Amino acid sequence: VTIRAHILGASGYAGGELIRLLTRHPDAGLATVESASCAGEEVGAVFPELRRIGLRFDGAGAVAANVRAGDAVFCAGTHGAARAAAPALLAAGAKVIDLSDDFRLAERAEAGGTVAVYGLPERYRAQIASARLVANPGCYPTATLLALLPLAEFAGAIEALVIDAKSGITGAGRTPSASSLFAEVDEDVRPYGLTGHRHEPEIAQELAAAGLSAPFTFTPQVVPLRRGMLVCAYAVMRAPAGEDAVRAAYRRAYGGSPFVRLLDGPPSLRAVAWSNDAEIRVSVHGQTVRVLSAIDNLGKGAAGQAVQNFNLMYGLAEERGLQASRGEIRT
Amino acid sequence: VTIRAHILGASGYAGGELIRLLTRHPDAGLATVESASCAGEEVGAVFPELRRIGLRFDGAGAVAANVRAGDAVFCAGTHGAARAAAPALLAAGAKVIDLSDDFRLAERAEAGGTVAVYGLPERYRAQIASARLVANPGCYPTATLLALLPLAEFAGAIEALVIDAKSGITGAGRTPSASSLFAEVDEDVRPYGLTGHRHEPEIAQELAAAGLSAPFTFTPQVVPLRRGMLVCAYAVMRAPAGEDAVRAAYRRAYGGSPFVRLLDGPPSLRAVAWSNDAEIRVSVHGQTVRVLSAIDNLGKGAAGQAVQNFNLMYGLAEERGLQASRGEIRT
Amino acid sequence: VTIRAHILGASGYAGGELIRLLTRHPDAGLATVESASCAGEEVGAVFPELRRIGLRFDGAGAVAANVRAGDAVFCAGTHGAARAAAPALLAAGAKVIDLSDDFRLAERAEAGGTVAVYGLPERYRAQIASARLVANPGCYPTATLLALLPLAEFAGAIEALVIDAKSGITGAGRTPSASSLFAEVDEDVRPYGLTGHRHEPEIAQELAAAGLSAPFTFTPQVVPLRRGMLVCAYAVMRAPAGEDAVRAAYRRAYGGSPFVRLLDGPPSLRAVAWSNDAEIRVSVHGQTVRVLSAIDNLGKGAAGQAVQNFNLMYGLAEERGLQASRGEIRT
Amino acid sequence: VTIRAHILGASGYAGGELIRLLTRHPDAGLATVESASCAGEEVGAVFPELRRIGLRFDGAGAVAANVRAGDAVFCAGTHGAARAAAPALLAAGAKVIDLSDDFRLAERAEAGGTVAVYGLPERYRAQIASARLVANPGCYPTATLLALLPLAEFAGAIEALVIDAKSGITGAGRTPSASSLFAEVDEDVRPYGLTGHRHEPEIAQELAAAGLSAPFTFTPQVVPLRRGMLVCAYAVMRAPAGEDAVRAAYRRAYGGSPFVRLLDGPPSLRAVAWSNDAEIRVSVHGQTVRVLSAIDNLGKGAAGQAVQNFNLMYGLAEERGLQASRGEIRT
Repeated sequence: VTIRAHILGASGYAGGELIRLLTRHPDAGLATVESASCAGEEVGAVFPELRRIGLRFDGAGAVAANVRAGDAVFCAGTHGAARAAAPALLAAGAKVIDLSDDFRLAERAEAGGTVAVYGLPERYRAQIASARLVANPGCYPTATLLALLPLAEFAGAIEALVIDAKSGITGAGRTPSASSLFAEVDEDVRPYGLTGHRHEPEIAQELAAAGLSAPFTFTPQVVPLRRGMLVCAYAVMRAPAGEDAVRAAYRRAYGGSPFVRLLDGPPSLRAVAWSNDAEIRVSVHGQTVRVLSAIDNLGKGAAGQAVQNFNLMYGLAEERGLQASRGEIRT
Repeated sequence: VTIRAHILGASGYAGGELIRLLTRHPDAGLATVESASCAGEEVGAVFPELRRIGLRFDGAGAVAANVRAGDAVFCAGTHGAARAAAPALLAAGAKVIDLSDDFRLAERAEAGGTVAVYGLPERYRAQIASARLVANPGCYPTATLLALLPLAEFAGAIEALVIDAKSGITGAGRTPSASSLFAEVDEDVRPYGLTGHRHEPEIAQELAAAGLSAPFTFTPQVVPLRRGMLVCAYAVMRAPAGEDAVRAAYRRAYGGSPFVRLLDGPPSLRAVAWSNDAEIRVSVHGQTVRVLSAIDNLGKGAAGQAVQNFNLMYGLAEERGLQASRGEIRT
Repeated sequence: VTIRAHILGASGYAGGELIRLLTRHPDAGLATVESASCAGEEVGAVFPELRRIGLRFDGAGAVAANVRAGDAVFCAGTHGAARAAAPALLAAGAKVIDLSDDFRLAERAEAGGTVAVYGLPERYRAQIASARLVANPGCYPTATLLALLPLAEFAGAIEALVIDAKSGITGAGRTPSASSLFAEVDEDVRPYGLTGHRHEPEIAQELAAAGLSAPFTFTPQVVPLRRGMLVCAYAVMRAPAGEDAVRAAYRRAYGGSPFVRLLDGPPSLRAVAWSNDAEIRVSVHGQTVRVLSAIDNLGKGAAGQAVQNFNLMYGLAEERGLQASRGEIRT
Repeated sequence: VTIRAHILGASGYAGGELIRLLTRHPDAGLATVESASCAGEEVGAVFPELRRIGLRFDGAGAVAANVRAGDAVFCAGTHGAARAAAPALLAAGAKVIDLSDDFRLAERAEAGGTVAVYGLPERYRAQIASARLVANPGCYPTATLLALLPLAEFAGAIEALVIDAKSGITGAGRTPSASSLFAEVDEDVRPYGLTGHRHEPEIAQELAAAGLSAPFTFTPQVVPLRRGMLVCAYAVMRAPAGEDAVRAAYRRAYGGSPFVRLLDGPPSLRAVAWSNDAEIRVSVHGQTVRVLSAIDNLGKGAAGQAVQNFNLMYGLAEERGLQASRGEIRT
């Protein structure tokens, strides 16, 4: 049976990626692609990669008018939009996956009586499976948590954590701003949010929930490319760590996770672009554990992970509709 | 029944794209991926996009040892390699699709008694269907011929043609050269081949075969991007052309061609990247007809078109295995 | 004696380049850098390349309050701003160089009784020298006119002109818009303005003024780079042209022009970036003359040419303050 | 009096930048630009930015034949070349500045009896002034040491150091290799040298010489841009550090250094590109000190620093010939 899916805020970069993924998902049917700003426009005019699909954006209110019990609604609009929309959608019997940060922090993870589950499947697979409201993690938290969570068993020995993160510019969204112009991003690597980035509390919450309460320093940087995020995470321990034990922890953590690839060589943004994959490489350098973690900020960092959560919420195989990257293999 | 497919010269950019396409083709089975220079290496180490596939390159001689009657062999090596290999492959009963320029020109389109068919399906669909040896067109000729061939019925009125072509750098291949270095290609648009480009005779031959014998000026240029080619072709006529008649000619020419999209708005390289699509826009400006033609130089300009030819040669639907671009729809 | 210089609209890309050039000009003193939107901000915060200069933007009205007879005012704001400001500036005895299109077309090239001279020094050197109001040409017209004007003596034999133009994205300005975002410009070549571009009347006027009244087709395209413009111009003649005569015409036209470099090899955007240089290569292909013309859209296409006009207007050597590109030589 | 300057290995990227800088240096005269591979070629054909200079490369042996006592020789060739050439050059009475890593490590910092001085002026200004052989630091060590050396007074409290470094691709040189191709570098951030990078011993030596013997983890990464390097260095302390004391240490360290700019906001690669500047920002996050350090890998990381050393060796003002970046001010 085909699950009806709706997208709110469909004309942003995460929205476009959701359209791409849901259109080819074998168990989903895309019922509504709502965008207030692009109502009536061809999806392919906004996202050239999607011209073959032949869809038009629906206008404001379309999801609310169209939603039925059992449907899935992906909220891909600006921060704040899901908080406004979710109660009615849940009341209508829909399941909601929110890609904004409206419900990620525990102190406000509630909509009309429903409590959101933090949608990082590699950590909360079971809870997601029974959730009606999922808070899809941010791109920086996703890459960072995948890099660091397996170190939880060594938490007591960690003096401090360093998170050096480089993001492609689609992470900044499609809303025009001077700092996202080609002429500003090109030929530069730009650190930003140096006195506090909006994703830090989310990272802090989830590291702490895993027992990783060592202080961390987070350095987000924009790199001149479209899609991709590389997080280099470093755990400085009070004593040398055992490489075998560390590697074993990562193998245990991700043994059952189809989208996490543990590598001996370096991760590659091109290897994960347009996919839901994460590539992780861990190594030990005396007292320091270094973890390199690569994802597509729009894939595993946004829309891909949202579809992974959708699969879990509807009892589908976790990889359903997601196996195919650009270098895809037959399903 | 699955058709066994082999690739000779599999570690170049066209070879990598063939691996990607044939791996997911529902009627093909990839039997050999031969690369003398990368024998034994993981395909995913050379092409990060293909890590999920889990293949290794075969060494020199693997195709010859492995080929059987009825198989398909794609020659994606350097120019000259197919001329050496084709006679034995044909004698073994294989069908051969050559992506080099070894057999494109009529005066040398013959291998061991077999005459090659020029593999532009939009023009030679029937001949390709019964061919045993296909010369897959070059990327510049493909984009140019798709742009200009429908003007054949106006040939007598054309004073001269201008072909202004911009290509992504993968068109120059994976063999290291100073002119393909990032630091040389970045922040520049580089005209080259100004005193004669290797693709000109191929363009000349096929324009003439269609009756378009007006002189043409060809200006190839490298642009700083990976995949994509935009040809702006101009036909200067001796008298104003009728826009309706011209547009009608394009509609007639491509009515049955599933990969050619006629547009009112501008073509986009991002719309055709990683696909076998071509986007074409024609307009009339007094005496001048302007045709914009966009393809992926590795897709419709190389590997995609090779698979399209494969489909025709084996009696499959022309779109088989090729409908899915990055923004793919279910087949 | 130092000439006092003022910039109106100093926080756009052309404004930033004017600041850079005028700061190091040996005969100019930068008196005012007015920007309504960036008033009080460090120039180096907006233009990182200019951090060493240590200037701040002045607020709205600063130029008007500060201008004196004999000063030079560069208008680098949005189209329309100069038309409003010029009459008072001229009345105050200043000379005005406008980089917008407010005064480029003859039918509206007048401000408070003063008639603007079209500021292409290679054509109007003498008139500029005695002008009080100069309309600095657009980037597309500059590259196009430099390419085509020397063909005026062959005008009668030209059937049609083709102008295929590729521009770096700074040509679109610093005002945020979706079409200038990195994620939209990257990995694409984007034709635009296909049904009429704002620069066409300017090109038409100046070609006609030179006797080149053959119809032209103009195809502007955005390429993924910051600074640079390559125009490939083609003149289709009614009969083959003589290569020697054509080349001689270019040598005559630019013999006394210090910024135009006639080349045998291909022009390069990197060769002209951050300079006032133009590189031109002309060749004859039967009936078609092909001219490749490369400039920096912010240099010879905007701020560099404005300073060249400034030099002429104040009786300075044409190259004064402009000899130094990135690969500069000592003056 | 003009100092005669020679370049060995002039056709690499550092060589090209040396040509650019020395051509405009008021006290240097470029006597020889030797390149075995480009002998006789126009410099402007290899480096389009240098077309105005109008030089040709000299062939192998030209420096040896041309050098005189008192001259300066810059060795910009591949590693190993300077070790072969330096003894004779020194014997001829020349001063030698080597940009390779031939003389950087103390255990082999000797040529024909002359001991090389490590050419980081911000640390060894006095020794450089009296040196006859200078080992110009690598780009990664330069950015890293500028970031970390001022922390020497806190060395005892440092548990471990993390050096996360991103480099533009010109750092890999002009010799063609697959990993430097545009199509490989574009749209990726590529960690490399993960099991040991050639620059690590140099960093280790100089950190130790300053008393910074805490273990460090070094992660070099290639980013898709031409020129620029951003090092994010982190010192994890055993107890929280005092922000005021740390900042004061940086101000003391760089008070007399004209090329180091201490910033409150983020450093920018565009701000330092084509210059000898370094931008540094230090902040304290509990136990972790974070230092962001930006240089041009070809400027302060290679040729610019070599000219700075040249100035010191010849008793010239340290900034001589180097004040002018792209956004240059008059000297």
